[in-house]
Amino acid sequence: MSQTTSHTTTDTTEHEVSSPSLDTGLLEEVLLGRWADTRRVSRALAAEDRFHKIEGLTKEQHRERVLGQLHELVAADAVHRAFPKEFGGQDAPGGNIAAFEELVTADPSLQIKAGVQWGLFGSAVLHLGTEEHHRRFLPGIMDLSVPGAFAMTEIGHGSDVASIGTTATYDPAADEFVLHTPFTAATKRFLGNAAVDGKDAVVFAQLITGGVNHGVHCFYCHLRDDDGQPLPGITIWDDGQKGGLNGIDNGRIAFDSIRIPRTYLLNRYGDVAADGTYTSSIESPGRRFFTMIGTLVQGRVSLSGASVAASKLALIGAVTYGNQRRQFNASSPVEEEVIMDYQLHQRRLIPRLATTVALTFAQEKLLAKFEDVFSGADDSDENRQELETLAAAIKPIATWHALDTLQEAREACGGAGFIAENRFATLRADLDIYVTFEGDNNVLLQLVAKRLLSDFAAEFKDADVGALSRYVASQAQSTVLHRFGLRRAIQSVQDTGDERRSANWFKQTEVQRDLLTDRVRQMVTDVAGELRSVARKPAAEQAATFNEHQHEIIQAATAHAELLIWESFTEALDGVEHAGTRQVLTWLRDVYTLTRIEENLDWYLLNGRISSQRARTLSPYINRLLARLRPLAQDIVDSFGYTADHVRMEVASGAEQLRQEEAMEHYRVLRASSDAPVDEKILLKRRQQERRGRRTER
Amino acid sequence: MSQTTSHTTTDTTEHEVSSPSLDTGLLEEVLLGRWADTRRVSRALAAEDRFHKIEGLTKEQHRERVLGQLHELVAADAVHRAFPKEFGGQDAPGGNIAAFEELVTADPSLQIKAGVQWGLFGSAVLHLGTEEHHRRFLPGIMDLSVPGAFAMTEIGHGSDVASIGTTATYDPAADEFVLHTPFTAATKRFLGNAAVDGKDAVVFAQLITGGVNHGVHCFYCHLRDDDGQPLPGITIWDDGQKGGLNGIDNGRIAFDSIRIPRTYLLNRYGDVAADGTYTSSIESPGRRFFTMIGTLVQGRVSLSGASVAASKLALIGAVTYGNQRRQFNASSPVEEEVIMDYQLHQRRLIPRLATTVALTFAQEKLLAKFEDVFSGADDSDENRQELETLAAAIKPIATWHALDTLQEAREACGGAGFIAENRFATLRADLDIYVTFEGDNNVLLQLVAKRLLSDFAAEFKDADVGALSRYVASQAQSTVLHRFGLRRAIQSVQDTGDERRSANWFKQTEVQRDLLTDRVRQMVTDVAGELRSVARKPAAEQAATFNEHQHEIIQAATAHAELLIWESFTEALDGVEHAGTRQVLTWLRDVYTLTRIEENLDWYLLNGRISSQRARTLSPYINRLLARLRPLAQDIVDSFGYTADHVRMEVASGAEQLRQEEAMEHYRVLRASSDAPVDEKILLKRRQQERRGRRTER
Repeated sequence: MSQTTSHTTTDTTEHEVSSPSLDTGLLEEVLLGRWADTRRVSRALAAEDRFHKIEGLTKEQHRERVLGQLHELVAADAVHRAFPKEFGGQDAPGGNIAAFEELVTADPSLQIKAGVQWGLFGSAVLHLGTEEHHRRFLPGIMDLSVPGAFAMTEIGHGSDVASIGTTATYDPAADEFVLHTPFTAATKRFLGNAAVDGKDAVVFAQLITGGVNHGVHCFYCHLRDDDGQPLPGITIWDDGQKGGLNGIDNGRIAFDSIRIPRTYLLNRYGDVAADGTYTSSIESPGRRFFTMIGTLVQGRVSLSGASVAASKLALIGAVTYGNQRRQFNASSPVEEEVIMDYQLHQRRLIPRLATTVALTFAQEKLLAKFEDVFSGADDSDENRQELETLAAAIKPIATWHALDTLQEAREACGGAGFIAENRFATLRADLDIYVTFEGDNNVLLQLVAKRLLSDFAAEFKDADVGALSRYVASQAQSTVLHRFGLRRAIQSVQDTGDERRSANWFKQTEVQRDLLTDRVRQMVTDVAGELRSVARKPAAEQAATFNEHQHEIIQAATAHAELLIWESFTEALDGVEHAGTRQVLTWLRDVYTLTRIEENLDWYLLNGRISSQRARTLSPYINRLLARLRPLAQDIVDSFGYTADHVRMEVASGAEQLRQEEAMEHYRVLRASSDAPVDEKILLKRRQQERRGRRTER
Repeated sequence: MSQTTSHTTTDTTEHEVSSPSLDTGLLEEVLLGRWADTRRVSRALAAEDRFHKIEGLTKEQHRERVLGQLHELVAADAVHRAFPKEFGGQDAPGGNIAAFEELVTADPSLQIKAGVQWGLFGSAVLHLGTEEHHRRFLPGIMDLSVPGAFAMTEIGHGSDVASIGTTATYDPAADEFVLHTPFTAATKRFLGNAAVDGKDAVVFAQLITGGVNHGVHCFYCHLRDDDGQPLPGITIWDDGQKGGLNGIDNGRIAFDSIRIPRTYLLNRYGDVAADGTYTSSIESPGRRFFTMIGTLVQGRVSLSGASVAASKLALIGAVTYGNQRRQFNASSPVEEEVIMDYQLHQRRLIPRLATTVALTFAQEKLLAKFEDVFSGADDSDENRQELETLAAAIKPIATWHALDTLQEAREACGGAGFIAENRFATLRADLDIYVTFEGDNNVLLQLVAKRLLSDFAAEFKDADVGALSRYVASQAQSTVLHRFGLRRAIQSVQDTGDERRSANWFKQTEVQRDLLTDRVRQMVTDVAGELRSVARKPAAEQAATFNEHQHEIIQAATAHAELLIWESFTEALDGVEHAGTRQVLTWLRDVYTLTRIEENLDWYLLNGRISSQRARTLSPYINRLLARLRPLAQDIVDSFGYTADHVRMEVASGAEQLRQEEAMEHYRVLRASSDAPVDEKILLKRRQQERRGRRTER
């Protein structure tokens, strides 16, 4: 099971281990991580034909197929891990997400529709409802006899959920809430399970009782009668064809003053008594809102994980094809180059491979934090906030990375990458929406930035004015030093032009940590300084200043996310004892880190963190690392542990290799035969030589 | 018709014209360019329902619709501009492409299928065939009674066409060529019109006569009988579902020693006499090959233009929506922010708007060059090569830009961007293949780089060794200067921290030209130096050195393309006399240029071209330019001149504005009414104040 492959690297100038033996079996285990067994169970299901996407179906056919698959998942006991044991679940929130992530390899529509039913609709009842709701609603949700919609997003409000327009007004005379859509923009939109399948829904609305709006709360609500017709007062539209995920029946819902029992309020964090009195265990409406919304973080976590899985499929396809496909014969008159040998191809695929491995570890850390909070092992406020920040940081990076990797892999396979059977294009189309739903990536990064800024502010909360001004002064001084590039002047002189010493510097764990951490700190400090200068100005002016630095703020949040990913990778390295495997993973970590630094090299130069001398050695060093990893690329993608039934790409099937061999054999036989045609170029050269010969004789 | 809109900019620190009045009618004319009339005619057709893509069709339905549309284009006399007048054409190659570009707004499948029929299949007969072929084949091609495939690409060879495996062996006894697919990889693939509609084809094959392979030539060939069945010896497969362009019936074709008349060789550049003697007007087989392939450059030209058109649609959608959509209320407790006011949104959309305008002018220049060559006005070898290099430079930038812009626009519209009716996602899916077909973008950029390197070498062809070594020495010295950042040391001190002076520097045309030109020159010089050092080494070693610098080579080619685009923009500016319009275009040019420089700022710093002091002012200056262009963004996209019938996006329909107004009106009425619910937050604050009050009283 555990295979060891040995590769000799030609470049040992930096005194690396010269021939790392990669234990692919071990690497597979390391990448599978804590929930390896659960992942294997879920992958076994995802390998079955019955769960696979069929390309070219109409949306009606695709929707029907996916609904059927959801029922099969129930029968296979594959989707209840997060639910309480008393209802037949396993109380295993982390394992549940690990299992869901793997479903993306079968069909992203299947993953997302399952996510709507059990991850959103079911989770809302579980986490926002109380015992009575659990007893009454969970069984039907879990066995899919009650498909349901998660009615949060409205046409007018997606990212700013606190401002949704739907109202739930309590009527004490009837002991009922009146659910209402007061204007078009308050229509619920993009809801999976709404257009066709949903019988019930959880609906987010402004809770109004006794003339007071207590903010957004979640309500249970029936949508359709037993014949599948919308109930009186409910209007439903189909969102129609989408850019992808057409196996899901997204739709719009509007409520015309429909009535639901008072007890349909999912009342874990806020309740209304029969007389209309509102009570909540959380006094601050803001904190209450974020607590309620925070229970839904698992959507982000699972999108991030599914994106990592899809990136792996893309790289298995492109690396396998890149190792078999040949084109142009620059270095030999007979044999064509294997395209993976081109530096550009290495540049296109190997950094993405490194980032995918990095994100695997980051996702593992995110899942562990999620398990901690949702299992109750540590569900302190602080830990919940950390989980939310971590998810808000990793999800944007992972989902954008998947789109980028699927696209680069598709282009790296040329026209073949565009054929649906090779799945790059269609996976990309399905995953496209991952970057804006369950939290728009840019909005999430802004949340991360705000957290960084408030942490920064908290450091100085109790400081007296003197301390603060001293800090600002020391910051200013450091800025001056950076501005003049003097800070590391001595270092610059020391390492002028010595590439080996420079590479040794770049690959040090502490150096990498300092470079990534310094960047986040400095960027946050810079922005905080700008914001502090208007702290006592009117809100509009503060907002304007924030806006003037929004681009930098997003960059700071991205830098923070990259640091968190680096930390996960570096922690994971510590756990790998096998020297060869650890070496290969270290190279991958270094490629991940150094390409991030290369990407932001101007910042490091301008802020005096890297000298020009060292900066100049960075790209060549990365290129050498890529060449070193190049012979290991196939082993690494093989260690992702997906089988042909998960990959399902012609480019990864070995067919290209067989075609290459057939063609080479044809030419070998032809060259050996007497009637092989001569190349005109050779004849022409001969004729020219004869002419020159004649001239010389004359 | 010509409207003038006036905007006042708030920031005039750099002494810009303070309120540029943009003449939108004039801007529309400038952007429509030389072939304005033709574009208008083609746009009028593209606005008609019958040519519009319907989302959600099966590939069979879509293919049938597009074939029907092609017949309607013939009836509308819309596709024959490039053909000779004697056959009913207009001998107007440039106008023909301008017209084709616009069809992408109706349906990219329509544009590409028309391109296959008349741009590839028809063009091959026109440019590679001779009079007899024209008389015999052009009428059927032009009136679409003979749909045809362009059978060049094979499974095994896409980019390296010279190495295709299909053979056409002359049999003098029968006066026929034998067309044959000798192994699987030589199967023709990805051919539009092959799977269903193609009656005939032009087939590229190695021409073998008298035991000599004269390289790739093009042959006419019949594919199917009158019942649509493949002729004996011809096997055809359907390429099936694709990532996009499913209105086109791409397929594979294999030939089992089928026979075609000798005269079916399209013999403009090479002929075989009845006795098997080969003759050609071009002695060098290499030059002959590139001449033949070069006639097909129009595919690249029209993909580039269509990509610019698609980018415009994307920006019309996203900018219009960005000006209406509101989300979050940072600066006002009542009104939500228009999302286009967010700096990040400006950063996401306006540089892409600037690049789209830049590419409009670059495409105009490319079309003019194309017209020059193909009209015969200047079809010298040198001009042909310039055309090919220009097309190879612009096509990658334009096609990647379209994918990037469609994606960013889709994300900027959130979930609405993913709904098929808003077209971002489906246009992107259709245009995806543009980056790898008709010349893979990376391969094209490598062609550009090779041209740059050979131009560089040519400069020193006649130089004696002394001159060359002096040159190398002076280069080395300049490298040393850059390495130590000394070259512009005096300049650095002069402009320390003076943002105004720095901005004045960045916006100078000559400075921009120097910065962009210097980068190309230096990068080419650097790579050429590395290549020269192995010039006398074995081919394999030379190839290895080339490969070790492939990443830089592609970067140099990209830098060259960006310079060419800048030159087109700057030349176009010279022709605009209206001061306000010229000012707005100049800002756009500056945003295009400065974001390119910002993207490569590390290079400019490391090579001493921009001082750290100036570099630090660059991003803030760009942000100020974006804020200045922000109020003009709608006028600019409106000046693209597309109507609602071209755009066909709900996000650009004004519906969002109506919904916002309805919601605002609802809240206005509610606030005025007596039973408006109070916000719990306000009550809570009041209660806290009361408590504090009581404490104070005590």
